Amino acid sequence: MIRYLTGGESHGRTMTAILDGMPSGLSIKESTINNDLYRRMLGYGRGKRMKIEADKVQIISGLRRSVTMGSPITLAINNVDHSIDRLPVVLNARPGHADLSGVMKYDLKDIRSVLERASARETVSRVSVGAVCKALLAEFGIEIASHVVAIGGVEAQTKDLGFDRLVSKAERSPVRCADSDASGLMCAEIDDATEEGDTLGGVFELIARGVPVGLGSYTQWDRRIEARLSYAVMSIQAVRGVSFGAGFEMAGMRGSMVHDEIFHDKKRGFYRTTNNAGGIEGGMTTGEAIVIQAVMKPIATLMSPLSSVNIRTKAKALANVERSDVCAVPAAGVVGEAVMAIELANAMIEKFGGDSLREMKRNYGGYLDQIKKI
Amino acid sequence: MIRYLTGGESHGRTMTAILDGMPSGLSIKESTINNDLYRRMLGYGRGKRMKIEADKVQIISGLRRSVTMGSPITLAINNVDHSIDRLPVVLNARPGHADLSGVMKYDLKDIRSVLERASARETVSRVSVGAVCKALLAEFGIEIASHVVAIGGVEAQTKDLGFDRLVSKAERSPVRCADSDASGLMCAEIDDATEEGDTLGGVFELIARGVPVGLGSYTQWDRRIEARLSYAVMSIQAVRGVSFGAGFEMAGMRGSMVHDEIFHDKKRGFYRTTNNAGGIEGGMTTGEAIVIQAVMKPIATLMSPLSSVNIRTKAKALANVERSDVCAVPAAGVVGEAVMAIELANAMIEKFGGDSLREMKRNYGGYLDQIKKI
Amino acid sequence: MIRYLTGGESHGRTMTAILDGMPSGLSIKESTINNDLYRRMLGYGRGKRMKIEADKVQIISGLRRSVTMGSPITLAINNVDHSIDRLPVVLNARPGHADLSGVMKYDLKDIRSVLERASARETVSRVSVGAVCKALLAEFGIEIASHVVAIGGVEAQTKDLGFDRLVSKAERSPVRCADSDASGLMCAEIDDATEEGDTLGGVFELIARGVPVGLGSYTQWDRRIEARLSYAVMSIQAVRGVSFGAGFEMAGMRGSMVHDEIFHDKKRGFYRTTNNAGGIEGGMTTGEAIVIQAVMKPIATLMSPLSSVNIRTKAKALANVERSDVCAVPAAGVVGEAVMAIELANAMIEKFGGDSLREMKRNYGGYLDQIKKI
Amino acid sequence: MIRYLTGGESHGRTMTAILDGMPSGLSIKESTINNDLYRRMLGYGRGKRMKIEADKVQIISGLRRSVTMGSPITLAINNVDHSIDRLPVVLNARPGHADLSGVMKYDLKDIRSVLERASARETVSRVSVGAVCKALLAEFGIEIASHVVAIGGVEAQTKDLGFDRLVSKAERSPVRCADSDASGLMCAEIDDATEEGDTLGGVFELIARGVPVGLGSYTQWDRRIEARLSYAVMSIQAVRGVSFGAGFEMAGMRGSMVHDEIFHDKKRGFYRTTNNAGGIEGGMTTGEAIVIQAVMKPIATLMSPLSSVNIRTKAKALANVERSDVCAVPAAGVVGEAVMAIELANAMIEKFGGDSLREMKRNYGGYLDQIKKI
Repeated sequence: MIRYLTGGESHGRTMTAILDGMPSGLSIKESTINNDLYRRMLGYGRGKRMKIEADKVQIISGLRRSVTMGSPITLAINNVDHSIDRLPVVLNARPGHADLSGVMKYDLKDIRSVLERASARETVSRVSVGAVCKALLAEFGIEIASHVVAIGGVEAQTKDLGFDRLVSKAERSPVRCADSDASGLMCAEIDDATEEGDTLGGVFELIARGVPVGLGSYTQWDRRIEARLSYAVMSIQAVRGVSFGAGFEMAGMRGSMVHDEIFHDKKRGFYRTTNNAGGIEGGMTTGEAIVIQAVMKPIATLMSPLSSVNIRTKAKALANVERSDVCAVPAAGVVGEAVMAIELANAMIEKFGGDSLREMKRNYGGYLDQIKKI
Repeated sequence: MIRYLTGGESHGRTMTAILDGMPSGLSIKESTINNDLYRRMLGYGRGKRMKIEADKVQIISGLRRSVTMGSPITLAINNVDHSIDRLPVVLNARPGHADLSGVMKYDLKDIRSVLERASARETVSRVSVGAVCKALLAEFGIEIASHVVAIGGVEAQTKDLGFDRLVSKAERSPVRCADSDASGLMCAEIDDATEEGDTLGGVFELIARGVPVGLGSYTQWDRRIEARLSYAVMSIQAVRGVSFGAGFEMAGMRGSMVHDEIFHDKKRGFYRTTNNAGGIEGGMTTGEAIVIQAVMKPIATLMSPLSSVNIRTKAKALANVERSDVCAVPAAGVVGEAVMAIELANAMIEKFGGDSLREMKRNYGGYLDQIKKI
Repeated sequence: MIRYLTGGESHGRTMTAILDGMPSGLSIKESTINNDLYRRMLGYGRGKRMKIEADKVQIISGLRRSVTMGSPITLAINNVDHSIDRLPVVLNARPGHADLSGVMKYDLKDIRSVLERASARETVSRVSVGAVCKALLAEFGIEIASHVVAIGGVEAQTKDLGFDRLVSKAERSPVRCADSDASGLMCAEIDDATEEGDTLGGVFELIARGVPVGLGSYTQWDRRIEARLSYAVMSIQAVRGVSFGAGFEMAGMRGSMVHDEIFHDKKRGFYRTTNNAGGIEGGMTTGEAIVIQAVMKPIATLMSPLSSVNIRTKAKALANVERSDVCAVPAAGVVGEAVMAIELANAMIEKFGGDSLREMKRNYGGYLDQIKKI
Repeated sequence: MIRYLTGGESHGRTMTAILDGMPSGLSIKESTINNDLYRRMLGYGRGKRMKIEADKVQIISGLRRSVTMGSPITLAINNVDHSIDRLPVVLNARPGHADLSGVMKYDLKDIRSVLERASARETVSRVSVGAVCKALLAEFGIEIASHVVAIGGVEAQTKDLGFDRLVSKAERSPVRCADSDASGLMCAEIDDATEEGDTLGGVFELIARGVPVGLGSYTQWDRRIEARLSYAVMSIQAVRGVSFGAGFEMAGMRGSMVHDEIFHDKKRGFYRTTNNAGGIEGGMTTGEAIVIQAVMKPIATLMSPLSSVNIRTKAKALANVERSDVCAVPAAGVVGEAVMAIELANAMIEKFGGDSLREMKRNYGGYLDQIKKI
């Protein structure tokens, strides 16, 4: 079992995470983590903060000579601006944010004490943890990627692109969209929304390739792999919907069109020619790629602020305006990769044991042999 | 904290659940649970099994004179047909089911040993646990309902119905759909699919009314209430997507159209006039109704079976045909109510403590007073 | 990971347990479980209840043709006397019991609603779960035994007995004590206490043989195997102290006398000639036998009742007298075996993975080879 | 629910902890934490390391203007010497340490990669977390103290000292022992052991005063407060036994002498005149002081090293000699206070809810009123 906790506020000193339960013998470089932190900062439509901060992780426990020892890994990313104690009081609650519910729940008088932790700045911690988990998964040939499939009504067409082209095209797009025409239209849409002081949401897709059959289980509700992945992805700030494979389109399809027929040949073993299931059947991975779509609502901080209320005076007021983005769907995809990696790493460790990488690989190899001989 | 585990196979002796952590002082009647078990069995498009079984719960621990004592509640529902040891071997894996991944994961030679537990029969346990949790929530004025919004391409129009009419109309529809025109079309669609040996999926909506502000939290990823609810709803067999409020439609909307502006008056306190957020902002309940939509894929057992493989011989074969439903979306809604109730009960107990109902109510009252005076 | 919950009251209908997470492919017989239930009922000094009840388990889920499938195992033991709703109110709190704190915590007016669940009758559920876990451990050559080392001031001398003789002698003693002289004195002491309307406690020892090196971990506090075992053993009703190996005697010993020197030869690999550590160093098993001692306080229900208070009137009163034992240390040892087995089974599953017994054994074998070649 | 994870190696950069779930509104000063870190470093018999390091905590998340906001609290204590990557290989396993089992479990070639995390240096993280929890408990009038009752065969007599004198005397003793005669003898014993290159263990006692009735529960094994406290205390490095109240002495006492009779008067409500139970009955606190004794084995690193084996060559060798203490029982008591505080804080938050200190206090006050009127 792996577990992790994160700490840190948007304008606090440091964003932190402790990741417990990684096997020994895994090489980790700070540059690998920094690469994902960099990818998280990109994206057309991001605000100014992104320009002033080049997040760099420090691994302050868990490694010796850059290799894990089985002990907990502490990750720290310093904030450039750590003025949390000096920043002014915020009283005008922003619709769509934690602001109002937060002050009521935690009995606070200043919305700032809410927004500092509710901020998606927290995802630097998760992206860092996810990068470590991706390094583990890579040892088993498991790759995770994301790309943007919709922003502000513009939808990408990416059906016939394979995994590799999808990834390489998405990585080069300013909005992480693998359809170059759509990519351009999305940027235009973002420009338009920026001008209007408005914001945009969208849909990103997560793909995990190389996952073995049999992660997760149908035997108890909380062991189902789609449920666990959904827990993780829905926990990303501003995500409001998660689906697998054909997702909500299945509502209008018949069973004969949806379910992925099963084939077998000696070389490949069992296989499918379609993947409407998104790589999951009966709470378990099928061995096909896991495909998740997630919708992100438009950023809740608007430069043309919505109508709201001052929490102290109760007077009508315009919502507080914080430094913010117009659209963060590309970044959310990178965060999605991270949380997907964490859940899959956990499922791998649970199934294959995990005190050392060598032990885990040996157990994994034994299982692959076993299922070949079924 | 409440926890529960379920046990039982489709043709085993008994479906069971142990629910740990309910406060003392709550009256529970078997008839309340049986009512939800009955609602779970209904629905146009269900198979024959539903006719032979009238599920009745037995509460075999946790109550004294029909009142909880704080001790764990054991629930048992006997299966009429408990022939699990005698039923024949199943070798032809059904696409869309746990069949193939299950035998590989658990090293089994007979698909029956998978399908017996992977079956949605398991949901009788969860519906029973959920009925107990609903009884707790009712003490705080929290109501949970479900209705069907789409089956096989037919979509219901229910936007202007209030909660009460929605519920009463849905309860009278054979497909639990509050739009009577759509209800008729859905039944026709089911008839058509039945004739073709095919199956249907759809979308159900869950609504919780009367939930206080401040359940869940943004402070750590796994405390977010939408993430926890998503974990629970996605764990229902055949659910492939979950969304909150305006859900996937938010991808095409601008922030100014999505976020629910905040108002205040002396009587009502803070309030909204829209609820695109589906009752959740920043990982916490807002006090508005929680609205969840979930898509269920078409039933994976088809009377006109799909192409598959015999797991022993590896020869091409038609998928196994088990007694099954054509469409189970209405029932899935009832299961959805149950898991939503369990998560909300847990969140209430976590926030308000929970050794006795009286203590919990006193703490709850104190909080309501506190937030009025913010 | 395995988990379990238990339910049931002393005079309720049924004592229950659901055990989640056992691997597939393990043969389980009800007779194996019944054997431990029988051992739990024995012991000189037990009350009348023990004579009227011959506990028999029913396995109502989780097995097909007596073999596990990976699905949860539900265990049920019916109570002969299930008069919980009709039994009279209890008002005079017994010192040493849950009575007084229980009614305050759970806001109850009748002590019976506390004692029904607080009763050690609950341990039939745990002994049943433990018997399943012992069956798993036996597949890996791990054996668990208990014997009584002290009752009412009489202390047994068992130092030079090996595991096998210790077990066979303990099993034949009426107080499960392997020192026959002490065994006789303990019975006499129990007779004396019985005459005086008094009760006795004592110390039992738990031994696990054949445990591999490396279960548990020092990397995070809650992963330490001695801490987990202590959690489990201290959770047995009336246990007030737990120690490992030389235990509290270490307070008076110097390091040079305590720590078990390390040796190596080609055949045996690393080994020790002493085991003051009780099989655990640095939060992990060493491969030597795990040895735990636990003290049980005297039974809290006295036939010559202690002074107490009527919780309704607040008047001075003699404590309630329920049907009870004079001494239950031998039975507590059997319960100790069960909870030790559960924790060790969990640690084995965590380290070696655990979807099927075959997979687990293969992984285990690979690890044994690995550590031989260190 | 509160949770925490710790990270850090003995010669790594920083010892860390993230504490999740503390209510908002609690004032925390670094000096409060530093005071306990200082107390942890003291004690006659400590090695040189203690002199070069004056541990200072940095609170790098979770506070705004020194007050909690409900968000996770990250604590960091820098190591003066962070040479982990440069320190030489260790090959001679120390009996009594994690050394040998650790290299086998984690597939390591260098014992240093084990001992860096297995070291009790980790307890600086726990002491820091505990100091925060003590600050929470203090708001409810709950105080936690420790004192040493035995070192190397010397036993203290402290029976008639009240809590306050016990604490003040222990705080002034070089070995944290409240019996000044014994204190002197303990120091002499330590001198003697030092001369011989040997080490000593002992027994410390933990006391919590002001705990309300009803924390913990008998309803499920893992909710029992003595089991949870035992889990926490047994997880302290080198602790090998834990007992409550009269502990192992109960083995020789009769029930009539052990159980604490119950009294009542209008002013005090229910009360006891003895506390053999150590403040816990039936898995719950009774309202009397919680009293725990724990035995610590002698330090496993001896200056006159024990016989061992070189893990690479398998040749007989003297155990590795690291910088170490002769006796650390006084420090272990301070660590014990910390883990006790964490568990009690968790139990308080679970029972009384815990989003804000004000809410928690209101709920607590309501409960105190309720149980007065029983």
